Amino acid sequence: MLLFELDQRTTQSKSKQIVDRLLEMMKDAALNPGDRLPSTRKLAELLRVHRTTVALAYQTLWSLGYVELRRGTPPVVRCRVPIMEPGDRESMSAIDWSCVASPASEEVYRLFLTRNAPCDNTLDRKRLSFEFIKMDPRLFPAGRFRASLGRAFRDEGLSLLGYGDAQGYEPLREAIAVRMRTHGISVTREEILITNGAQHALDLVLRMIARPGITVAVESPCYADILPLLKQYGMDIAEIPITGEGMDLDVLEDRCRQSPLHLIYTMPNFQNPTGITTDQEHRERLLSICSHYGIPLLEDAFEEEMKYSGRVVLPVKSMDSGQRVIYCGTFSKVLFPGLRVGWVAAHPECIRRLAALRRYGELAPPGLLQAALSRFCSEGWYEKHVSMMHKVYRKRMQTALTALESFVSPEWARWTRPGGGYLIWLSMASHPPVDWEKAFASEGIAVASGRSFFSSDPDGTFFRLSISSLDDAEIDEGVRRLGRAFQKVYEKRGIAK
Amino acid sequence: MLLFELDQRTTQSKSKQIVDRLLEMMKDAALNPGDRLPSTRKLAELLRVHRTTVALAYQTLWSLGYVELRRGTPPVVRCRVPIMEPGDRESMSAIDWSCVASPASEEVYRLFLTRNAPCDNTLDRKRLSFEFIKMDPRLFPAGRFRASLGRAFRDEGLSLLGYGDAQGYEPLREAIAVRMRTHGISVTREEILITNGAQHALDLVLRMIARPGITVAVESPCYADILPLLKQYGMDIAEIPITGEGMDLDVLEDRCRQSPLHLIYTMPNFQNPTGITTDQEHRERLLSICSHYGIPLLEDAFEEEMKYSGRVVLPVKSMDSGQRVIYCGTFSKVLFPGLRVGWVAAHPECIRRLAALRRYGELAPPGLLQAALSRFCSEGWYEKHVSMMHKVYRKRMQTALTALESFVSPEWARWTRPGGGYLIWLSMASHPPVDWEKAFASEGIAVASGRSFFSSDPDGTFFRLSISSLDDAEIDEGVRRLGRAFQKVYEKRGIAK
Repeated sequence: MLLFELDQRTTQSKSKQIVDRLLEMMKDAALNPGDRLPSTRKLAELLRVHRTTVALAYQTLWSLGYVELRRGTPPVVRCRVPIMEPGDRESMSAIDWSCVASPASEEVYRLFLTRNAPCDNTLDRKRLSFEFIKMDPRLFPAGRFRASLGRAFRDEGLSLLGYGDAQGYEPLREAIAVRMRTHGISVTREEILITNGAQHALDLVLRMIARPGITVAVESPCYADILPLLKQYGMDIAEIPITGEGMDLDVLEDRCRQSPLHLIYTMPNFQNPTGITTDQEHRERLLSICSHYGIPLLEDAFEEEMKYSGRVVLPVKSMDSGQRVIYCGTFSKVLFPGLRVGWVAAHPECIRRLAALRRYGELAPPGLLQAALSRFCSEGWYEKHVSMMHKVYRKRMQTALTALESFVSPEWARWTRPGGGYLIWLSMASHPPVDWEKAFASEGIAVASGRSFFSSDPDGTFFRLSISSLDDAEIDEGVRRLGRAFQKVYEKRGIAK
Repeated sequence: MLLFELDQRTTQSKSKQIVDRLLEMMKDAALNPGDRLPSTRKLAELLRVHRTTVALAYQTLWSLGYVELRRGTPPVVRCRVPIMEPGDRESMSAIDWSCVASPASEEVYRLFLTRNAPCDNTLDRKRLSFEFIKMDPRLFPAGRFRASLGRAFRDEGLSLLGYGDAQGYEPLREAIAVRMRTHGISVTREEILITNGAQHALDLVLRMIARPGITVAVESPCYADILPLLKQYGMDIAEIPITGEGMDLDVLEDRCRQSPLHLIYTMPNFQNPTGITTDQEHRERLLSICSHYGIPLLEDAFEEEMKYSGRVVLPVKSMDSGQRVIYCGTFSKVLFPGLRVGWVAAHPECIRRLAALRRYGELAPPGLLQAALSRFCSEGWYEKHVSMMHKVYRKRMQTALTALESFVSPEWARWTRPGGGYLIWLSMASHPPVDWEKAFASEGIAVASGRSFFSSDPDGTFFRLSISSLDDAEIDEGVRRLGRAFQKVYEKRGIAK
């Protein structure tokens, strides 16, 4: 029998009280699956309330899945399935998912399992990591952004919580168009598509062109995370070596003469992973090759905003009179990666096609974050933040390069000297096989192995250093440790500093 | 010559003042592209500040893209490209984007152009729209959600603004796992992948299995927006007719015997577009067909939470001892579509593969919104909101069905009587060609044409009514107008009420 009374003094409705008390009893196992509850009439009598009050409570419990209701019989506590622990299910599927997934998806899955994802945001200050491009959260203008978010919610909340525009929130597209003028690019909001970060932009562009027999030219080494996408879409990869001046354009032209290329993918600024930046002449020649062979150019400007040294020329897109360039940018490498906001700027005919693919891929990006970002930009905080980032990272890059001079012998490695961004590329002197990961771990540092930036096996040993998440003192100490790790390896072989 | 002085009383830095004044002059065309600025030394003398103050101001202007700096010469105001108006660029691309895009993408693009997207959130109360599934924003618990968002930001802001987990924010996966128990489904957070809404879940599942020669069985009519995805991935579509009891399982079994099916896609509750719900027996038989032929089942439970009539059985996934079912759910049809949060629940081997595809498609979903939603659920607001929605829509659906009885003759149309959700499906009596859109527009209403829910041409005329965005009075008035529109068409043909 049910033993509870209703509180007559509270403002809580009686029906709500009945729901809560019954839920408590289920939780405490005073009521168990299969147990019958009193009929509506009986419980109403017991608690001295109206029958509709009890009926309403039972209806609520049913709608929450706690009881079964059948006409003419009293409610029964529903048999609730137990929650299993993670792992319990592993062996139980009657389906072999490795066969359900396509061979291409399986290849992507294997890559996923072998690579670390940069999703751990806890700061482990004992281990100094040069591994990922994750800006230092100590520099996040979180308070300012929170205020912009609050104002966006207050002014437009109801509309932002509804379905949005597949092409992206219009005021944000406008703000981006205005911002792009500072990089010499003239586009309207109709030529902008908001994406879930630059990676999503690459996905949409590749999805648009995907069909059998497609070949995409990439720099070698190149941005590691485009390689799984190219595999996913069954595309052939033409690896064009990168020199100190950027993609080797002689090799590219030779390749164009051999057989058709369908897209050229490039990062002209602070290339990931090498940090190399191309000059005006290189950009013009690249564009003229695209023009001559009728190939669209995908310009990945992931660090356009981080041109802090004063030596970097305007983007290829700024010279693109033939509208051949699909430009993609992102807020992830200068503001917050967790917003997942990037964009594509291209001819409207291209943008509308990408918007169609996004529409059926996931409808539209979330309105609230776009509106907050749009305000953050139009209120001037974005420009201020970029200025601060320039100041901080100009110094940090200088610290890193000075430390490399001090602690790493040119006999062991050569490295790039980027004019912006976060990345330094080390080409190691030849050496017998070394367990580098262990060598670095024993010094309490982590760096990205060069291997993952090549589609085929590279000729040599390379490392990518990202200075994005460390401050000056940490960079100095980290490079010092890196030098010690190299020293141990190379001194054994008689290549002392 | 520059004519301005610095304000000595303000707290603003002198360098900042110089930047602001020069920007003002550029805006007012007192400074124009190509104009030389004074040398650092000269301006410092004029303003009686230190040279480094001016140098810093020039550096800032450079980093914002307003001036060119060259060693040894004074800075020059950069030639800024004009912003064109939308449309100016249309004819200027040297690339034919319709050829760059694959034939499949072009087909998706054509569909996109012909269909309306439900992205306009302005309420036009003169025109009563039954066209889209967009919940009434008047019911949005925006204030509550804003508070949850504020708390999430305050407590975890820095971490949420960094890169997140490709599988989704863990506490939200946990909250969803707990919620799914109320629908009889036992899964752990390891069996959940957060997606950008249910549409994104469908995209990931199809992407996982995509390869030449894949056939997917769908109900006919079915959810319109899966059709472009199937085309995008080059899949064959097996249309299985739907009866009043759901997908015709005799036809499905016949089809299975003919040639392999690789996936069966179904919406067991309040099917979009028909509103039809299957019973226990149907669900068990469907699962046994999947089991017998070794086919994974994609259960789209887009309105699982809207079972407000008390007559709907548990999901197919709850009976899925063989772990064959890929279940997808969403917050878009009961809370806010603008959050873009849905999920997949499936065997971990399946979930990890989908997570890999999401990782390379767009990295991870935005942390802030997931954390806010997770709090909204764990603080109990989600359950409360669902209860309210049940109460409201139970009444609205009754209003709609009563109005149909009153204003629409059974001689003109038959319709479904759903036990939940938002959708009613009208099958029209045969008639000569009619411009229905015009007929409805002249009465100030809009409904969804049945055509878009079929992969091949349907045999008959159908309309889908969504009661999601109208209140009781509006529904009554809307159905009254619908009846008038029908009356005008059918009375001409002598089929009076």
